[in-house]
Amino acid sequence: MTEGQISAELRADVLVEAIPYLSQFAGSRIVVKYGGNAIAGGDEETALQSFADDVLALHSVGILPVIVHGGGPQIGELLQRLGKESEFRDGLRVTDDDSLEVARMVLVGKVNSDLVGAINAKRGVAVGLSGQDATLIVASRREPDIGYVGDVVGVNTKILDHLLAGGFSPVIATIGADAFGQAYNINADTVAGAVATALGAEKLIFLTDVAGIRADSSDPASVISAMSDKELASLIADGSVNAGMIPKAAACIDAVSGGVRSAHILDGRTAHALLVELFSEGGVGTMVVAQ
Amino acid sequence: MTEGQISAELRADVLVEAIPYLSQFAGSRIVVKYGGNAIAGGDEETALQSFADDVLALHSVGILPVIVHGGGPQIGELLQRLGKESEFRDGLRVTDDDSLEVARMVLVGKVNSDLVGAINAKRGVAVGLSGQDATLIVASRREPDIGYVGDVVGVNTKILDHLLAGGFSPVIATIGADAFGQAYNINADTVAGAVATALGAEKLIFLTDVAGIRADSSDPASVISAMSDKELASLIADGSVNAGMIPKAAACIDAVSGGVRSAHILDGRTAHALLVELFSEGGVGTMVVAQ
Amino acid sequence: MTEGQISAELRADVLVEAIPYLSQFAGSRIVVKYGGNAIAGGDEETALQSFADDVLALHSVGILPVIVHGGGPQIGELLQRLGKESEFRDGLRVTDDDSLEVARMVLVGKVNSDLVGAINAKRGVAVGLSGQDATLIVASRREPDIGYVGDVVGVNTKILDHLLAGGFSPVIATIGADAFGQAYNINADTVAGAVATALGAEKLIFLTDVAGIRADSSDPASVISAMSDKELASLIADGSVNAGMIPKAAACIDAVSGGVRSAHILDGRTAHALLVELFSEGGVGTMVVAQ
Amino acid sequence: MTEGQISAELRADVLVEAIPYLSQFAGSRIVVKYGGNAIAGGDEETALQSFADDVLALHSVGILPVIVHGGGPQIGELLQRLGKESEFRDGLRVTDDDSLEVARMVLVGKVNSDLVGAINAKRGVAVGLSGQDATLIVASRREPDIGYVGDVVGVNTKILDHLLAGGFSPVIATIGADAFGQAYNINADTVAGAVATALGAEKLIFLTDVAGIRADSSDPASVISAMSDKELASLIADGSVNAGMIPKAAACIDAVSGGVRSAHILDGRTAHALLVELFSEGGVGTMVVAQ
Amino acid sequence: MTEGQISAELRADVLVEAIPYLSQFAGSRIVVKYGGNAIAGGDEETALQSFADDVLALHSVGILPVIVHGGGPQIGELLQRLGKESEFRDGLRVTDDDSLEVARMVLVGKVNSDLVGAINAKRGVAVGLSGQDATLIVASRREPDIGYVGDVVGVNTKILDHLLAGGFSPVIATIGADAFGQAYNINADTVAGAVATALGAEKLIFLTDVAGIRADSSDPASVISAMSDKELASLIADGSVNAGMIPKAAACIDAVSGGVRSAHILDGRTAHALLVELFSEGGVGTMVVAQ
Amino acid sequence: MTEGQISAELRADVLVEAIPYLSQFAGSRIVVKYGGNAIAGGDEETALQSFADDVLALHSVGILPVIVHGGGPQIGELLQRLGKESEFRDGLRVTDDDSLEVARMVLVGKVNSDLVGAINAKRGVAVGLSGQDATLIVASRREPDIGYVGDVVGVNTKILDHLLAGGFSPVIATIGADAFGQAYNINADTVAGAVATALGAEKLIFLTDVAGIRADSSDPASVISAMSDKELASLIADGSVNAGMIPKAAACIDAVSGGVRSAHILDGRTAHALLVELFSEGGVGTMVVAQ
Repeated sequence: MTEGQISAELRADVLVEAIPYLSQFAGSRIVVKYGGNAIAGGDEETALQSFADDVLALHSVGILPVIVHGGGPQIGELLQRLGKESEFRDGLRVTDDDSLEVARMVLVGKVNSDLVGAINAKRGVAVGLSGQDATLIVASRREPDIGYVGDVVGVNTKILDHLLAGGFSPVIATIGADAFGQAYNINADTVAGAVATALGAEKLIFLTDVAGIRADSSDPASVISAMSDKELASLIADGSVNAGMIPKAAACIDAVSGGVRSAHILDGRTAHALLVELFSEGGVGTMVVAQ
Repeated sequence: MTEGQISAELRADVLVEAIPYLSQFAGSRIVVKYGGNAIAGGDEETALQSFADDVLALHSVGILPVIVHGGGPQIGELLQRLGKESEFRDGLRVTDDDSLEVARMVLVGKVNSDLVGAINAKRGVAVGLSGQDATLIVASRREPDIGYVGDVVGVNTKILDHLLAGGFSPVIATIGADAFGQAYNINADTVAGAVATALGAEKLIFLTDVAGIRADSSDPASVISAMSDKELASLIADGSVNAGMIPKAAACIDAVSGGVRSAHILDGRTAHALLVELFSEGGVGTMVVAQ
Repeated sequence: MTEGQISAELRADVLVEAIPYLSQFAGSRIVVKYGGNAIAGGDEETALQSFADDVLALHSVGILPVIVHGGGPQIGELLQRLGKESEFRDGLRVTDDDSLEVARMVLVGKVNSDLVGAINAKRGVAVGLSGQDATLIVASRREPDIGYVGDVVGVNTKILDHLLAGGFSPVIATIGADAFGQAYNINADTVAGAVATALGAEKLIFLTDVAGIRADSSDPASVISAMSDKELASLIADGSVNAGMIPKAAACIDAVSGGVRSAHILDGRTAHALLVELFSEGGVGTMVVAQ
Repeated sequence: MTEGQISAELRADVLVEAIPYLSQFAGSRIVVKYGGNAIAGGDEETALQSFADDVLALHSVGILPVIVHGGGPQIGELLQRLGKESEFRDGLRVTDDDSLEVARMVLVGKVNSDLVGAINAKRGVAVGLSGQDATLIVASRREPDIGYVGDVVGVNTKILDHLLAGGFSPVIATIGADAFGQAYNINADTVAGAVATALGAEKLIFLTDVAGIRADSSDPASVISAMSDKELASLIADGSVNAGMIPKAAACIDAVSGGVRSAHILDGRTAHALLVELFSEGGVGTMVVAQ
Repeated sequence: MTEGQISAELRADVLVEAIPYLSQFAGSRIVVKYGGNAIAGGDEETALQSFADDVLALHSVGILPVIVHGGGPQIGELLQRLGKESEFRDGLRVTDDDSLEVARMVLVGKVNSDLVGAINAKRGVAVGLSGQDATLIVASRREPDIGYVGDVVGVNTKILDHLLAGGFSPVIATIGADAFGQAYNINADTVAGAVATALGAEKLIFLTDVAGIRADSSDPASVISAMSDKELASLIADGSVNAGMIPKAAACIDAVSGGVRSAHILDGRTAHALLVELFSEGGVGTMVVAQ
Repeated sequence: MTEGQISAELRADVLVEAIPYLSQFAGSRIVVKYGGNAIAGGDEETALQSFADDVLALHSVGILPVIVHGGGPQIGELLQRLGKESEFRDGLRVTDDDSLEVARMVLVGKVNSDLVGAINAKRGVAVGLSGQDATLIVASRREPDIGYVGDVVGVNTKILDHLLAGGFSPVIATIGADAFGQAYNINADTVAGAVATALGAEKLIFLTDVAGIRADSSDPASVISAMSDKELASLIADGSVNAGMIPKAAACIDAVSGGVRSAHILDGRTAHALLVELFSEGGVGTMVVAQ
């Protein structure tokens, strides 16, 4: 749709609605979990470009985006190329020394670099971080033990605060380390929630390949637009929310109970979903707030 | 049109187009001449409310609006109530001591207060100024002499700079004074241009009751969307631009040749004309830039 | 008296006495109510010039003067010119829509502009304000209802703080507004007291046409040079203080009980009364302090 | 040697000699190229620990170390594990898409992470960067074309300046990108020299596995302790400096002619070589200065 | 004279005259040479108290006084007590090692300490300095050689600037040192002039025991109230100014030609002479300005 | 010993040990009592030079040294030259008016000036102070009365804080004054302890002519390297510590119980004893810490 085709009236309506949010969110920290599935769901290159555009749009209006990403599928791919067979326990990959090294290389040296590169090809504001940089993510070995898979023990926001103050947008690969320097691979949804809480973020946003949380998991039309953390906890308890959505839902609950104003689960495959969510009254997807 | 009826796609289009201007204009000074005719052309109360909304919208996204206004019709009205007959010379009212006192009371104590009051009833950021405050507008008696009607000799931006730095939006009544403290009534279009130049404004915007400058003054459909100061000067020279439009056109030419990036003549009766002008590629009305 | 006629010894005495006050008051806020009667009592033009000199003298030694003024007689004069008859109730003018508009025009557009103009003709430091600017004075309708006559509900000192920090001297016309933007005319003595309290002023000074508060209201020689707020309250209670002095006396009591160090009632017709009051041990007129 | 065995006299001698350098270098930027060979030459783990200690020692006395590293052998190793055969042209590996991805993963996700991890296990001051972060290293394709092997076109020091100002120590993996976001692998010695010049570094130090530059390349005893850039250029021209030493020598020459005060080639296998070089009069290894 | 005896009118006259100078001199540096003769001329204790009061009065109104003093008579007294006979050459005392030590002890440890102590007994703002502190006064041996008597080579104002910025008032004993640390005794009038010039002082004031410079050196009534440096140079040349007045006159000429606004020679025996000089139009004594 | 003779290994050992202290002490205040005996014990000139070097070395690495000194022997010498016989009571000199004047002249005008001069001949950072400057040391007459001998009542650190913030190193002569400006001579060991406590110093260091505190006062080999304040108090109680060591020992106890981290008694005759004490693990002499 060309610019000439939008009436002045319509523009005025959109702008009058958007402007209060622009000033409300200026200076706010917004943590965005960029999901592998969001990429994988459509044309990867186009999705990445649209995401990079949105990050820069937020940056340009004074919002402070912090990106968190994982990369499970890409790790699996390299392990396969190396002929390394993985053992799975309760659906989680057992991570030995060699698998950890592969995970680090893929997350830090490939997925993170790709995201940073896509943003910086337009404007050089992104800075890639692993959780080992400036001891950003302090981790411990997860129980039951499945190797170098970690839990978040703490988040040192010093490097994030400093980069944000300098006008840079951090992009975080979810490797952490313990006090002895031992690295661990950590679930990216969990890291996103912990980072949002530690930063006192205004919003935590999950870009996924579904339209939001459904009242009836089998009915795409049953997406709930707003709910409390209590209501979401009930949906987990009764099994309505399940599988891959559980870590995201849990991170939403933890974040809003930890002081994040709202948590959101959006369909990242829609163009500029981030902008529409932030700058319209109704938003898109599912919003979770503390009761 | 309710918010629910605008598609996410359309919103995204408007926002993606608007956001670069938001960041481009953040921190910029925009001088807006709010015309008596803009008020008088429609429902006065509604127009004033919509204008107040737009001023606050600009303020909220970090733009620094400075409002300039006149009030000829309202001065005439009070003179009439006082039974004071005016002498006119070349179409300009001869301003004696008593008329000057009436002009000051109406401009500073009524029109300015009404504008400030309308904005501050929503958010208390407006501060009314006359050109006598902090010797903002230095004036001299206009030649040929028609009493206390003045020309702008200089603009001391110190009080404007200070109020803008404090987050306040100045609203200026166009009374000036000379070095002896003698006050003068000054044409508001001229003051708007001089203030824009002195402030190094990004834009000078005239809110009027016409859609813009016409190639053919008798044809409303001949509005020119963009032109150079040279072209505008030609239109004045050949009489295409005439009557009340001349001071505005001259102020546009002076402002852009004095460093203001662009000058605009808009129809202030359209709702939120200011926002649409600032935040869309095509803008509305006529834009004048230096050749 | 020419400078040559004052002996070095005498100069030394005055200076040695004055200097401690100069440094004591540097940076202090002094609220001065400039009364219509102070003007009317002598040669208006001369009194205004002398007052302007004193304001600039205080400003030049780092004291922060804030001027408050009313203008009842001037309002009455314009109403009369407009052939508008006023109804009085309990001695107060009933203020309808039209009378309010006249009051605003006279206070903001005439008396305030005259004061600001007189100061700025010498040095451009004065900035005129009405209580509507930056919602400086929040008002409500006075009970019993006599139209748009208001009481002070609150004072937002933000614009005063900002102007003082910038080296400007605010001059306040006593129009206030409520949360809906409705304007009211308010007693200037009351506003002066409320502003002094809100600013944490060092002193509140009323420039009047009497020498001070008298122990015996009929005996000009019975002026009391210093008294407590309690003592002043007794004089009101027993009728010794009456008529037009009551709002001033009440403002003095409110101010000193609200934290203002001292309140003063001086004869503004004496040349440079402000300077002598501030910079000599005994001062002039009546000083009120909290018991 | 235990502390008790060093005489007070000897300590005083070392300290009196070291202290002027401590204050001279405080606040200075020191670029250190940490070589794969320096690691490989001894016990890798021990060498890494000793290097991490020295980086933290410099950091603690207010010197600003910036680390640059390569990782050729480790890239080769992963390519081999993936069964990828490399084509070599003029001794340089032709780098196709896949090899570039491997290089990025190894440099950014393994070697860089290992260095950062080793430092941060002691004190969390290191932050890993690739040249793509904040467009730190702008690159172009090297001629003759051997795939994604780049030359340095420019160094944007903004992110380095910001991290150093925040008390962080950057560790740089030598991947760069062009204006289209295309990544390239770049020689680490060259990057170290370009970064030192761009930062206005006090010193550029190469930690290698040789004792310095030899007058006679076959005689280990012929190490030259100090020389000019002109003299070093002659040694390259006459073939005395050859093979892997050439990029280092060229970087030394470029750096000192670009304003770096001195460039150094040290044996990184000696414990705490960095400290001894910086804080003694004679230093160790070869020092190059501009003629 | 008690405060009650000075009329309000008279006070107003003195204050109106003084206030412009108060604001004009606020923040200015005033160098005062406090002479041994000024002390010796009257009751030493009373004179010192009055001087201390004036220094604190200047300090309290934001003026920055810097005191310079000598102490020839007191040095002579101690030399005599020690039975040390002085050789005089051209009327100047030959200063050997021992005499220098005596001079330092007397100037720094007695006269300076007495002045500092007198001021600080009232308010603790004075800080004593010798010219050796922070190498304030760089000196060289005077030619022809009469021992450790020095000339001023330079003034390092760093310590003065720092103390003044901290609200302290420096009191300077006129010992200087050369680059080898060798101390010298220097004429205090000369030091006062050099310090005033180096500080860019507003005024240099000599407090002496005469009323000013006389047109006819034998006629006390011939004191000249204002003159140019050129005129003063003529008076030296023709012998009208002679003896002990010559170094003061020369320092006045050097200071005003070096940028000090005015230099003054006053009778320090008059109470509060400093205040009357600074804060009245006519001043007292003789004022010298650059032609 | 020439630099070439110290092995790189040995240097590395000393530096690796010293560097943590360098950063630990950077910005810390170290109070050093420089004793007359430390001077007298060796070649006075050489000792003074070595001490000046150490002060400047500390200054150059960001440590903030504050020097305190006495000068009893030098006072006695001048009294003797003046033929003044002293009365002693309990081993303390009775100080009459004349003796006080001599003490002030010697301490402030000779010993202090010599120390300041020796430092500033190398780099002009020292500023001499007496306790009368800016009322640094508030004193009262000591009981039982032996004339103008004082006790420390309080320490006003304002001038010390200001000089340290400006990069200057204060050197303090131990004259104090009471509220009436009366000066007193005070024991320098006591002043050093009071100044260290008031400054919140990291260390208080006494440079003396003994190697430290001995377990057996008659056995030079029995020096104790570290002890608690309690243990030191016991040694005083049982007479093991006696004579001139008592004021030092008492000052150590007071200082560490008042918050100073550690107090030290060193042999100031050893070259660079200050540096070795500060920058080695074992230090030298006796260290006292709070239990």
